[in-house]
Amino acid sequence: MTTNRQILLLEQPKGALEESHYELRDGPLPEPGDGEILVRTLLISIDAANRAWMQGATYRKEMTGGSVMEGYGVGQVVESKAEGVAVGDIVACEVGWQDYSVHLGRRVVKLPHDYRPLSHFISILGIAGLTAWHGLMTVGRPEAGETVLVSAAAGSVGQYVGQIAKAKDCTAIGIAGGPEKCAFVTDELGFDACIDYKGEHVRKRIAELAPGGVNVYFDNVGADILEAALFNMAERGRVVCCGAISQYDTTEMASPRGLPGVIVFKRLRMEGFIVTDFYNDNDKAIADLAAMHAAGQIKVVEDVLEGLEQAPRGLIGLLAGDNVGKRMIRVAPDPD
Amino acid sequence: MTTNRQILLLEQPKGALEESHYELRDGPLPEPGDGEILVRTLLISIDAANRAWMQGATYRKEMTGGSVMEGYGVGQVVESKAEGVAVGDIVACEVGWQDYSVHLGRRVVKLPHDYRPLSHFISILGIAGLTAWHGLMTVGRPEAGETVLVSAAAGSVGQYVGQIAKAKDCTAIGIAGGPEKCAFVTDELGFDACIDYKGEHVRKRIAELAPGGVNVYFDNVGADILEAALFNMAERGRVVCCGAISQYDTTEMASPRGLPGVIVFKRLRMEGFIVTDFYNDNDKAIADLAAMHAAGQIKVVEDVLEGLEQAPRGLIGLLAGDNVGKRMIRVAPDPD
Repeated sequence: MTTNRQILLLEQPKGALEESHYELRDGPLPEPGDGEILVRTLLISIDAANRAWMQGATYRKEMTGGSVMEGYGVGQVVESKAEGVAVGDIVACEVGWQDYSVHLGRRVVKLPHDYRPLSHFISILGIAGLTAWHGLMTVGRPEAGETVLVSAAAGSVGQYVGQIAKAKDCTAIGIAGGPEKCAFVTDELGFDACIDYKGEHVRKRIAELAPGGVNVYFDNVGADILEAALFNMAERGRVVCCGAISQYDTTEMASPRGLPGVIVFKRLRMEGFIVTDFYNDNDKAIADLAAMHAAGQIKVVEDVLEGLEQAPRGLIGLLAGDNVGKRMIRVAPDPD
Repeated sequence: MTTNRQILLLEQPKGALEESHYELRDGPLPEPGDGEILVRTLLISIDAANRAWMQGATYRKEMTGGSVMEGYGVGQVVESKAEGVAVGDIVACEVGWQDYSVHLGRRVVKLPHDYRPLSHFISILGIAGLTAWHGLMTVGRPEAGETVLVSAAAGSVGQYVGQIAKAKDCTAIGIAGGPEKCAFVTDELGFDACIDYKGEHVRKRIAELAPGGVNVYFDNVGADILEAALFNMAERGRVVCCGAISQYDTTEMASPRGLPGVIVFKRLRMEGFIVTDFYNDNDKAIADLAAMHAAGQIKVVEDVLEGLEQAPRGLIGLLAGDNVGKRMIRVAPDPD
């Protein structure tokens, strides 16, 4: 097994991302240098942010095409020339959409050796759960009794936002697309309510469900749903700007209307964050998430596609909203 | 002198505010009841917010027309049936656009008896200076060495924002309309630079003047200037949402484009406030403003129109940007 399957992003998409923007090839098996490790990919996280990275300078270098598609993941060390990292170790790092990748040993996150399933390091204890926890608890700061609204509520991050809010004695209202997702959000995840943005008038429904206003809105989508939330915020409400999935797969620059007026007269705080900003607090977040999970307060719902070759379809589908729970690609099975 | 000149707002303007929306009439002299005082208006503050109050529910009840135009001001007590307030006292309260008004004695702010000119309680030590101080220091929180950008820099609030920023060892960049205002902002007020939005490409000029990005943008205008600022913010920059003068005199709902994307990837904080939110900290703010003024760090520039009948023209002109410094109406002279 010396070939390395790799999925290339051929070019920066101008409109919607399509499978034709990608190509699967057999690449060379990279060789680790001094201080480096060779990692075999086990799981790849599929995130809306993957698409945003192609949109120009964001918080990381623009992906312009012609190289292996970037992405976070979990893997196992198969060769090590780095101190402190041994063959067999399980690590989290930017594996990319490929079977094997080389990393500086000091730049990867070592994961507990005996914890299974490893998918939890992508979902509840990984990028999805951490994004939800840091965004809600550190940026949004809801107090017990307050109302938390979250869009893409059935998705990777949204499912945790609402469940954490419930665990912290808040009212949790979701927004999701279609009656099946909404039923999942209320019946499986335990949110107090869920608005179907495909079939309901979002602004009116928020007003009905949160007559006292929304204290924290966790925004994963932007555009008209953000606008509907803004006009339903309580005074001194907080809008956690996590993402704008409605804006990634397009070249249009849409914005909610009514800004900054509504921010002034309701004294809102809108604040953006990236999960890696809070890296130093990850231990605290993971401990709290694990405790809520152990107490039965948080269910973990994962959406796992089998096989590296599913990655392009997985991302394109995610952008269209076809996932329920944290989407990831299983490239190789968990080691025993 | 028993008549009470009053300026009525006849109806809620649908488009731009015009003088025909107002009517000057001789009204009755009101009589204070138990616990109330009769106040003779000396000065009326003209604020962009006066126009916003006609736009529907904001942080205060909508002005729909048919009553005396609302406004803050300074006056002298001419009759008192309230404990703790004596005839001759100087007070700040919502005098409205009229010669006389009645207030609950406990609802007015008593001002120092011997301080002159009283106009300072409208400008540096009043609504303008307090708005600048609370917005910049409490919401924006610039640190020494950071870059502060402010729009409407020659206006009521903007002039203080930049001068306070300079006094706190920040770089101060203004945005104003026309070369005369810009020269005033740099030469008279001591800002490091001022961008003429009528003649310069605002987004490019901000990038040139703040190559490391803007740390605090104090927004008085909204719309395309806010957009230009947003795309020039430094990471973790703060946008102080004070007002949106470009949006008040219209029924259109414009918004800066690119939201919430830019908030996420730059991790910005956009936060709105109303000066009265920080009422409890006014003593601290006034002490700091007075100290900076005494130290020669803050100049006070006032734009005083003589005569109650000038109020409509004064507000309409303010919305068009014709003022330099804090605009107010002198209704009666300062008492000796």
